[in-house]
Formats: sequence, C-alpha cells, structure tokens
Amino acid sequence: MDSTADSTALLTDHYELTMLQAALKAGTAERRAVFELFPRRLAGGRRYGVVAGVGRALDALEAFRFESEQLAILEDVVDGRTLEWLAGYRFTGDMWGYAEGETFFPQSPLLVVEASFAEAVVLETVLLSIYNHDSAIATAASRMTLAAGERPCIEMGSRRTHEAAAIAAARAAYVAGFTATSNLAARARFGVPTTGTSAHAFTLLHDSEEQAFQAQVASLGKGTTLLVDTYDIAEAVAKAVEIAGPELGAVRIDSGDLGLLAHDVRRQLDDLGATGTKIIVTSDLDEYAIAGLAAAPVDGYGVGTQLVTGSGHPTAGFVYKLVAREGASGDLEPVAKKSASKTSIGGRKYALRRRNRKDVADAEVIGIGTAPQGDNNDRPLLPQLVKGGEVVGREPLDAARDRHQASVAELPVIAHSLLKGDPAIPTLFQ
Amino acid sequence: MDSTADSTALLTDHYELTMLQAALKAGTAERRAVFELFPRRLAGGRRYGVVAGVGRALDALEAFRFESEQLAILEDVVDGRTLEWLAGYRFTGDMWGYAEGETFFPQSPLLVVEASFAEAVVLETVLLSIYNHDSAIATAASRMTLAAGERPCIEMGSRRTHEAAAIAAARAAYVAGFTATSNLAARARFGVPTTGTSAHAFTLLHDSEEQAFQAQVASLGKGTTLLVDTYDIAEAVAKAVEIAGPELGAVRIDSGDLGLLAHDVRRQLDDLGATGTKIIVTSDLDEYAIAGLAAAPVDGYGVGTQLVTGSGHPTAGFVYKLVAREGASGDLEPVAKKSASKTSIGGRKYALRRRNRKDVADAEVIGIGTAPQGDNNDRPLLPQLVKGGEVVGREPLDAARDRHQASVAELPVIAHSLLKGDPAIPTLFQ
Repeated sequence: MDSTADSTALLTDHYELTMLQAALKAGTAERRAVFELFPRRLAGGRRYGVVAGVGRALDALEAFRFESEQLAILEDVVDGRTLEWLAGYRFTGDMWGYAEGETFFPQSPLLVVEASFAEAVVLETVLLSIYNHDSAIATAASRMTLAAGERPCIEMGSRRTHEAAAIAAARAAYVAGFTATSNLAARARFGVPTTGTSAHAFTLLHDSEEQAFQAQVASLGKGTTLLVDTYDIAEAVAKAVEIAGPELGAVRIDSGDLGLLAHDVRRQLDDLGATGTKIIVTSDLDEYAIAGLAAAPVDGYGVGTQLVTGSGHPTAGFVYKLVAREGASGDLEPVAKKSASKTSIGGRKYALRRRNRKDVADAEVIGIGTAPQGDNNDRPLLPQLVKGGEVVGREPLDAARDRHQASVAELPVIAHSLLKGDPAIPTLFQ
Repeated sequence: MDSTADSTALLTDHYELTMLQAALKAGTAERRAVFELFPRRLAGGRRYGVVAGVGRALDALEAFRFESEQLAILEDVVDGRTLEWLAGYRFTGDMWGYAEGETFFPQSPLLVVEASFAEAVVLETVLLSIYNHDSAIATAASRMTLAAGERPCIEMGSRRTHEAAAIAAARAAYVAGFTATSNLAARARFGVPTTGTSAHAFTLLHDSEEQAFQAQVASLGKGTTLLVDTYDIAEAVAKAVEIAGPELGAVRIDSGDLGLLAHDVRRQLDDLGATGTKIIVTSDLDEYAIAGLAAAPVDGYGVGTQLVTGSGHPTAGFVYKLVAREGASGDLEPVAKKSASKTSIGGRKYALRRRNRKDVADAEVIGIGTAPQGDNNDRPLLPQLVKGGEVVGREPLDAARDRHQASVAELPVIAHSLLKGDPAIPTLFQ
C-alpha cells in the first residue's frame, strides 16, 4: 500500500497544504484538534441514510504518503519546510466512526478524527470524497433493495459513471443489499459476486435471433438469461423456450412498459411449460419503478443509471469540520463557525441509537463529551477505527452487509416509505 | 501503461466476456463490426453538450490488456478458450471520434469503432464510463463558464465525488473553460493549474481571526485570499485590510446571500482603499447562481458540488450500439434494435457541422456512409483517433480547451440560453 503509484496523498485540495504551510510557520500546526465528518441533513426528504466507504477510507488512510513523486509535484505549491513535513507524514492519531452499513440521520457524527491539526486537516478531501460518494450510492441502493423485498437487485450501472467510481458503487450497492454486480473489477478488488445476461449487440451480430439464442445456449447452458426485446418479444420468448426448453434460466426485458410486458411474458412462459424460467427487468429502474413493479411477475431487477447516480442525489453532502482544538490552557476547546448559514456545533460528539423495549429505534442521540452509561437500550455508534495511527476497524465486506440489514430492520416501519418526509427517527441533542 | 496494476481490462461488464465466449464458440466473434457511441438526446433541455474524456479513453484503450492477474479473476467467469483469446487481446481496429472539447447534439456519432465484434464489444463499458462521466461534467462546466463570461471559474468539487472521478472532473472542467482546480492529483496527472484559498478550520484553529489572518499573510503573502465569513464579515474585512493592506489579493465569501454581501464587501474594500482586492464567492454555485451574480461585484467563482455532479445531470446518457456487421456476403450490413423504445439507426455514420456564410453553425448533419464533398461550409467532425490499433489522435489538453472555446463561439446565440429548450442547432439526417 505504500508504493508511490498507489499513494492517495494527492487526492487533496491545494488549500489544505497551503493552510498547513501557514500553520507550520505560525506554530499552530501541532495543536491537537478534533474534526468531525457529518451530514447537515438527509438529501431529498429521505427517511434514513446508509454509511458506506469506511473500509475504503481506511485503505486510503494507510496509503496517504508523500513519496518523492508526490513531493516533486508540490514544489511549486508549498515551501521547503512544508515539503519536509509532508515527507515524514504518517497519521498517528485516533478515529472513531459509524461502522460500514450502519444507518445515519441528520448531524450523525459519522467519523471523529482526533490528531494534530496538521495531521487531520490534510485528510479532509480524500475522506469526504470516499464517504460522500459511497454513502450516496448505498443510501439509494438501500431504498431499492427495500422496495424490491425478497427479489434480487443486480447492479449494472458501471457504464454510466466514472470507471473507478463504478467499482466503488458496486461495492456500496452490495453493502446495501444488492446481490451482485456486472462490474468485473469489483469482483477482483472486493469480491463482489458478478453476473451478466446478454446485450442487443449479441443478437444483432448473428444472422437471426434464433442463431443468437442457439449460440448463447450452446456456450453458456440452458440456465442462461436470454435478452428477448431486440425484435418482437412474443416471438423471441417462443424461440427461447424452443431452443433452451423449460430449463431456460431467465429472460430479460430491457424496454417498453415493463409491468405489462412481464405479465404477458409470464403467461407465455407458463403456457409453454417454462414455469421455472425467471423474468429479469432492466431499463432506467429506480426505487419508485421497482416499487411500482411489486405486483408484476418479475423475479429480479437490474439497476444501472439511477443506482450509480444515487437516484437523484449523487453526493451525500457530508462536511468535515473542526469542532475542537487545543487552547492556550492545553485543553481541547469547542470551536464553530458563527456567521450566516452553514453554522456547526462545536465540541466532540458521542452518538447512540436509542431503542425502545421492543428493540425498535426511537432516536439518534448526540451529545458533547462522553456518552452517558445507563440501563436503557442505547446502542453505541462510534467504535474505534484507528488507534495511534493503526487501523483497528477493518472488517470483511459481508459484515457491513449484515450490519446494513440489521440496522434497517431496527428502524420504525416509516423507514420503508419512499415518500419525502421527516427522518425515520429524530436526532436529539443531549 | 501495460503493467498489471494499471490494466483497464476489468473495467468491464461480466456479460461482455460471456457474450464473447458464446460468439467465439459460434464462430461469429471475428465478424467485422461497427459500434457507435452516441447520445439519444441532450439531458435536461440543454442547448448543446461538450465531449470530454477522449484523451482518457485513448489511454484506457492502450492499457486494456489481460495479464495473469486479470485472467486469474476470470477463471470462474469464462471458459479456457476465451481466457486464451483474452490473453492475446490487443485492439487492432480503427476509431474515429469527435475531438475533445467539441460540442455535440442529439444522435451525434461521438465515437465510431470499427474492428472485429470481439475486439470492439469488450470495450463498451470502459469507453462509456469515461465518455459519460467526463462529458457530463464538461457540459455542465461549459454552461457555467458561459454564464461567468470573463470572470474565472475555479473547480473545487473534489470532496463531493468519488476520489478518482474528482481528478477527471477537474480535467473536464478545464477543457470547458475553468481556469483552475483545487485538486492536486489533477495537477500531477494532467497539468491542470491548481489554486486555493483557506478554510474555516484554519481560522478556528487560531485564538482569534486576527491571528489566523496574520499567520496566513505571513506565510502566503499579501496576495493571498482570506476567508472572511467565519464570524462577522464586516469585522473580518476590516481586519483583513488592516493586516494585509490594500495589496490584499482577495477575500472569499462562502455563505449567506452572496449578491448582497458582495456589494457590501466591495463598498467596504473600496472605502478602505483596497480597490484592487478581489472578491471570490463560493457556496453551492451552479450556472443559474453564477448568472444571477452577473451584476454583483464578484471577481471569481469557486464551484464545487454542482460541477462534479453535472449540475443535475451526472451522466451524459451515451450508449454504445452495434450499427453494422459483416453479413454472409462479407460486406458490412446495417443492423438495429427494432422492438419498443430505445431503437437505434443502423449503418455507419458520418457527421458534419454545417455553417452558414458567416461561419455560424446551422445544423448537425449526420448520414450513413461517406460524407458528401461539396463547396459548402461544412466542418467534418470525425477525425481518426486510432488506426490499426495505434493511437493517432492524442493531443495536449490545451488543444481541447481551445477547441471548446471555438466550438461554442461558432454556435448561434441561443446556445447561451440557460432555459430549457431545443438544441441550439437541429440534427439533420441525410
């Protein structure tokens, strides 16, 4: 992780390093500081958000090193003293954060970073980039998997987003309950299961749809998924069952009125004896379209554009703010911006998920200082992720996936509503 | 570019490789084919789009190699014959495309790929990812720089998007007229100029705003940009000029009613004799907010979230479709999907920008086959980018930036309209 090629150190805004330079000269760079990464609100009247990117952020932290290649780029950006400081950069502080897959609410302190100002300020951009992107995708994905219920959702959006964002999107969608992705790099990098069907190009390549279906079944077996909407759907379904028999795995419909077509195709498949053949639908699906197909005989959803663009909210809107720093006395003192809009709450936070006696979430409880110890049913939300610079919070991706499921299940039923409204539980400041 | 770590070969959807497997077995994989990458429409009633990502796509093509690391991942995805074919993969075909920075319209054939089906089909995802992302950003950026007129726009959105997408976004914004970015990796990778101001955290770190300003000016000089909205703006402006004198480079306002505040701050700066001190505004700006500030005494715009998310349209919606393939006769035959929605036009396209006698663009002229040679003022739009597998269309980023400016300048004035409406010029099929 510490090779030059993999360094994450330049995933940083120019001003973080010039601020560092000024603070080094002023003698304030080494003051102890607490930064917090949090959402001011939930985007789009959603009922909850889902944290994703934690594992990627920990990887990025370990790879945040200024080697000769990075330092050469910065020669015209900062002075010699700052370059020297950066050359020795190693994060030695502590971080606590919401575990990956956890749900969150307005003001939830998703990540608490305690270190010197200098060590913490330079991480702002890379931490926000990862958390903002991955959580936006996971939040949209979670609404989709909730709407889909027991039916599987497959992530197919790579082509609609930046090629590296696509890998992270596939990972975030998996955390939030998607069963698979089309993205092979996500399989390689994160072990996300991959799957695929066929494209119109494959049908068009062949002299007839029949030849295309024969070619696909001959190579991929009868369990394959045939794309049936290149020419006439009813004719294609008939050919598909003729060629593969009732063992045909599935058909995919990628255009038209998916609900109506699914009913027609299901009837036709059943009439042909292909009662076990599944129907997969794709074509600009989002959580609303998925919910709208709940009564249609659909067996799985392939989701592309709307998944990788966060279904209208491509960024989670998290900010990274200094909330406390060492004062003249040597103690940590709360600080906050005061002018106009975009104010923040000074002081280092704790966070608890308060639950009623039936283990249903009641409130997001946030306070300054140390969390109260009581006999209530509060669930602490800030496990330690980094201790003295060492990553201690790494976990398998399936743990995040399980946590997502449990955390959503714990929310009141209003969390299932796709209508715009208040968060599923209130945020209480104590 | 051919090292394993940098391979782009897995930025690919699972089904492209299973289609390849089926086509290899059927003996159809080597049929010559033409794929085209194009938009069905312009997103959001915009007047034009801007192509970006061409240079990145050419880099990705050169790095599209299946080495042992990639092949190991694919062992459970495709059969041995396909693995063997992939191991020897090298694109040997031709590509023609709209040059980077060029404007485009509905159905513009942005990239024409001619190769065997097998060679061309596997490039679908990575080409679409790059073009869809970068062009979405460049299109939004172009509207912003048009709205800003002579005033500079600075890209500051890295923290709101995936960390690698941020680098590409900075590059695309630069193509579309932004003067600089905050992203240091974009400086390193693509030579985009970087710049920066200061954050609220820097002010809050210090015991007073005065100390923070003194620290910044002492280290970064009087030409620096001081952030004046942490506490009280009028007090901050007074302190800023007291500390830096009338040589103060600029002040930044990041919250509140930017138009009103800019007037107040300008008056105050002028009264203090700091008539040369500039005012930079930031805070969720988009092209509409920029246009709304045209009459305010603002000297530059820092744009973040709305730039990197394409100002409401984070993906350009391009598709990659097979439009012709070798038939039984050995000739290329046009092919097209016919069922329901999402139909396409078969046959390989040419494209011309038709201009009137005053060199103002009149129409996007698209046809099948070879472009007509006439004495009219048509500008051909499809230079060759790849010839027999060799990249021949690489150019410096500034060439794309110059082309963007020239191409927008050539459009009729309606192109400047931010209102939703028809494309600035019609697409004519000949």
